[in-house]
Amino acid sequence: MLNPFFKNQGPLKINDIIKFLKLNIKINQNQEISDIKDLVSSNKGNITFYHSKKYKDDAKKTKASFCLTTESLKIDLPKTCEALIVDNVLLSTSKITSIFYPESVNDNFDESVISINDTEFKNKVSFGKNVLIGKNVSIGENCKIGHNTIIEKNVVVGNNCSIGSNNIIRNTLIRNSVRILDNCNIGKHGFGFFPIKDKNLRYPHIGIVLLEENCEIGCGSTIDRGSMSNTIIGKNTFLDNQIHVAHNVKIGENSIIAGQVGIAGSSTIGNNVKIGGQAGISGHLKIGNNVEIGGGSGVIKDIPDNSKVMGYPAKNIRDFLRDNR
Amino acid sequence: MLNPFFKNQGPLKINDIIKFLKLNIKINQNQEISDIKDLVSSNKGNITFYHSKKYKDDAKKTKASFCLTTESLKIDLPKTCEALIVDNVLLSTSKITSIFYPESVNDNFDESVISINDTEFKNKVSFGKNVLIGKNVSIGENCKIGHNTIIEKNVVVGNNCSIGSNNIIRNTLIRNSVRILDNCNIGKHGFGFFPIKDKNLRYPHIGIVLLEENCEIGCGSTIDRGSMSNTIIGKNTFLDNQIHVAHNVKIGENSIIAGQVGIAGSSTIGNNVKIGGQAGISGHLKIGNNVEIGGGSGVIKDIPDNSKVMGYPAKNIRDFLRDNR
Amino acid sequence: MLNPFFKNQGPLKINDIIKFLKLNIKINQNQEISDIKDLVSSNKGNITFYHSKKYKDDAKKTKASFCLTTESLKIDLPKTCEALIVDNVLLSTSKITSIFYPESVNDNFDESVISINDTEFKNKVSFGKNVLIGKNVSIGENCKIGHNTIIEKNVVVGNNCSIGSNNIIRNTLIRNSVRILDNCNIGKHGFGFFPIKDKNLRYPHIGIVLLEENCEIGCGSTIDRGSMSNTIIGKNTFLDNQIHVAHNVKIGENSIIAGQVGIAGSSTIGNNVKIGGQAGISGHLKIGNNVEIGGGSGVIKDIPDNSKVMGYPAKNIRDFLRDNR
Repeated sequence: MLNPFFKNQGPLKINDIIKFLKLNIKINQNQEISDIKDLVSSNKGNITFYHSKKYKDDAKKTKASFCLTTESLKIDLPKTCEALIVDNVLLSTSKITSIFYPESVNDNFDESVISINDTEFKNKVSFGKNVLIGKNVSIGENCKIGHNTIIEKNVVVGNNCSIGSNNIIRNTLIRNSVRILDNCNIGKHGFGFFPIKDKNLRYPHIGIVLLEENCEIGCGSTIDRGSMSNTIIGKNTFLDNQIHVAHNVKIGENSIIAGQVGIAGSSTIGNNVKIGGQAGISGHLKIGNNVEIGGGSGVIKDIPDNSKVMGYPAKNIRDFLRDNR
Repeated sequence: MLNPFFKNQGPLKINDIIKFLKLNIKINQNQEISDIKDLVSSNKGNITFYHSKKYKDDAKKTKASFCLTTESLKIDLPKTCEALIVDNVLLSTSKITSIFYPESVNDNFDESVISINDTEFKNKVSFGKNVLIGKNVSIGENCKIGHNTIIEKNVVVGNNCSIGSNNIIRNTLIRNSVRILDNCNIGKHGFGFFPIKDKNLRYPHIGIVLLEENCEIGCGSTIDRGSMSNTIIGKNTFLDNQIHVAHNVKIGENSIIAGQVGIAGSSTIGNNVKIGGQAGISGHLKIGNNVEIGGGSGVIKDIPDNSKVMGYPAKNIRDFLRDNR
Repeated sequence: MLNPFFKNQGPLKINDIIKFLKLNIKINQNQEISDIKDLVSSNKGNITFYHSKKYKDDAKKTKASFCLTTESLKIDLPKTCEALIVDNVLLSTSKITSIFYPESVNDNFDESVISINDTEFKNKVSFGKNVLIGKNVSIGENCKIGHNTIIEKNVVVGNNCSIGSNNIIRNTLIRNSVRILDNCNIGKHGFGFFPIKDKNLRYPHIGIVLLEENCEIGCGSTIDRGSMSNTIIGKNTFLDNQIHVAHNVKIGENSIIAGQVGIAGSSTIGNNVKIGGQAGISGHLKIGNNVEIGGGSGVIKDIPDNSKVMGYPAKNIRDFLRDNR
């Protein structure tokens, strides 16, 4: 369920992929590669990528047939997975992903939208003025969509959802009973690119945003879709106003996130987590279940289950309060 | 003046209230309760609530006839106020408030709005394209309302106000000469609910937002209306861009609040206060008059009049600068 | 190129300026003053202002014919520049600027806009629904403008630009290949005013916003135009979502600024700078080239080239990590 929306242009021949990357090798059996996925979700006939020892355990178990990696990392791959040695793993991954999913790079405004008055939803949805609907959109029973909201292409809305005014949503799967207040941007590509002098290279974002049942998104929030995995807001998790959730972030169930919090890319937040206002979570972190993070905190390392932390950098809240008496 | 907008469905019989809460008591004289209010604003014939020793002084003086409270707190109530002992004071308060003010829970988009061209304001107000006006709205002399702005139901606009484009405003009382720039959300319910597994319970927000004379609200700001009291921005107080003001916050006069500041629920800010960019104020605090709070500060306790503070947690600015030399 | 948009109402006679400020002096030769500019950009026949020793070096070299300043500062001015002694330099500067550029004070919504369908851009630009265009706007080849976006007066858009939906842009010069995502406010006046009890006095903002080639502005960002100079985002510099850039800020080339960063007025950021999420930069600072600022940092002093800093206040990142082990 990584990617129900972007159309896969595969399969591609493995030697075409190699030629495209200008690698100086040739594979004897020019087999077809059906998709590019991360280490965990790959299957036979897929190509994957492995760029950091951090993912060693996943690398050992990958089922992919080929893997973009480096000379020093290739030793961790299983025998069933052939290493393709490249200079820059992420850059090569980005290039190949763009071939499989060319539409995932472009995030211009959606020219396909039409007035909701001209769609099948006219008599089904309660909607405001100037609502626009793109291609490949479905909307469940008993939903409300406020004024000036744009549901761009690739959006599924469940039942009993209340979407406010002035929102822009794309590439997003919305479960039942979700509430999105006003002025939100959901499903845009994340802030991911390769810095290149005078001309940065955007990398593809083939993930979506998944808003689980009964979650709530406050006014003026931005939730970017994932690059190689999805951005997820868990069941019954409530976000206050002006929150920023970056690409690939996964937030668990029954969590409460106060105003102006920012969560950087690829971090994972557990269930029953409470995050105070203006706290920030760095990227690629794992915040456990039942964690409480004080307002204003800056979290720069993993936080185990059941911890209470505060401060910048965040530490045990008792230590924080003691050190600052 | 707490609540000029939401319609009170009372009076209710006290024994009906008790039955609704499933309490195992019965009041001999089944009197009519006209309203639910906080300890301070309650009068005879009202029901109130008392959930924390913090409000002991207010409890002692309340004029309410009944009070939702706990066994241990009821001792502070005057003889004229009968205690109703409940397990969870705030939850019970929320439930009763929802009965008095059923419209204060629902914050779906306002379906009552129509084009300003079809209202009495057509020839009175200078307005942009696609402006929408809800029920129960009044607008004074010499006002401007920008493009795509939605004045939802329950809004009073004074004279000489300049409201920019893409704003959404509801349940708000705007005095004369107020300026609201663009992309703001004003008057939505706050981030208040009872966390319940899989299905949080929103509590009612029967307060409004009150923008006093000559105040200014910067682009992309969110100001939530109060729950049991009002959210207030004082006279000639200026807010920069991207500011978040939570429910029940009261800001005094002639204050200056820089970009991206966040003020959590129920805090009170005095007059002539200066708050630097990105500072955060925790909830339920009292910031005195003439206080200066440095940019980036995290304020987690009350600040007396005439103080200059900085840091996280915020302390005397001289100490902060000395400790960080 | 400070100000291609606001119409200069000059020249003014110097003795009229003096009379307006109610100064008790008279200049023998009642010469014409063509413009008001800062110390550096002034030429013969201009009036300038000098209010802080911080700008001593600039004062010594100014080519202006007159300068609003104080008794104690006037000694730094060259003989070619006559000092006009005033009580409050910035207030007097503001008043005179308002006479030269009366339109630079007023930032009400632009009543001049019309539907893009009624403009010359109808067949040239790829645009969404409800796009509005003001006076004095030009748009290059191969541009996209999303739904509900308002290009107010005084905007130049280069070639190959992608502007998303729900943006409001004014007084802005946009070079080629710039991307503005959604919900941004660009070119509004900054948060600059003289605090006066009950009635603050806005000062004029005669600068513009300049977005250099290939830069990108994320969703929900606000970029204020300059007061006496321009606000600039450099070539190939990328801004993430919810960023606030205050008036007169200048950001160099190839810089990367993560979500929710705030940069206060008049600060200068170099080339190849990386700023982590939620970091804040105080006003009037100079951040050098190749600087890295950790997420959540609060920068309150100048940072030299090639430094890596983190913390609040920000310090050498090694010290920060060591002190917080």
